[in-house]
Amino acid sequence: MPVLSLRIDFGPKKRIGPGKIRLLEHIGTSGSISAAARAMDMSYKHAWDLIEEMNRLFGRPLVHTQTGGREGGGARLTAVGRTVVARFRTIERTAAKAAHSELEALEAEISPT
Amino acid sequence: MPVLSLRIDFGPKKRIGPGKIRLLEHIGTSGSISAAARAMDMSYKHAWDLIEEMNRLFGRPLVHTQTGGREGGGARLTAVGRTVVARFRTIERTAAKAAHSELEALEAEISPT
Repeated sequence: MPVLSLRIDFGPKKRIGPGKIRLLEHIGTSGSISAAARAMDMSYKHAWDLIEEMNRLFGRPLVHTQTGGREGGGARLTAVGRTVVARFRTIERTAAKAAHSELEALEAEISPT
Repeated sequence: MPVLSLRIDFGPKKRIGPGKIRLLEHIGTSGSISAAARAMDMSYKHAWDLIEEMNRLFGRPLVHTQTGGREGGGARLTAVGRTVVARFRTIERTAAKAAHSELEALEAEISPT
């Protein structure tokens, strides 16, 4: 089956898609922005730029960072960060389910060569 | 309302999204690959590469080209080209409709600042 991926556009420079959502998910599971950046093969700076873009879009932080402490700092998703991830994944599932038969019909246009 | 855009992934280097579909639509309306490329602010070569990628994916041409003739050549969509455009747009509409309320809920997470 073909795989559907989505981007949601809230206006100029206000877009979220699979890359940003996966970054948030990696931060949620690893508790670290640098580990998440590494997992996605991007620089820490690029990861941080994407986070700041999302913070600006939603008007509040999606990622909470802590400096120092016994573990030497860390990061976790805020409530809105978790909500954005969950809603994006729901939208993705809903869209894929609704379009399922049309996607199959499109795939059927591929001629076996 | 936020705008949903889709990409459909049939495998490595086998992807279609809004850019390729819009290119096909421009070819359909203008009857010319170079006019379509110009309308999308891309080189003729890039447009042609995208067309070839789609031809390979579907195993047959999506665009029919004519050389010479009174109009000096031209291009038109083949039946499969028209079907691919129509199905993609239907998938887009179906997905956006199904995800409508979830998209509104996501938009509601944007804090008025």
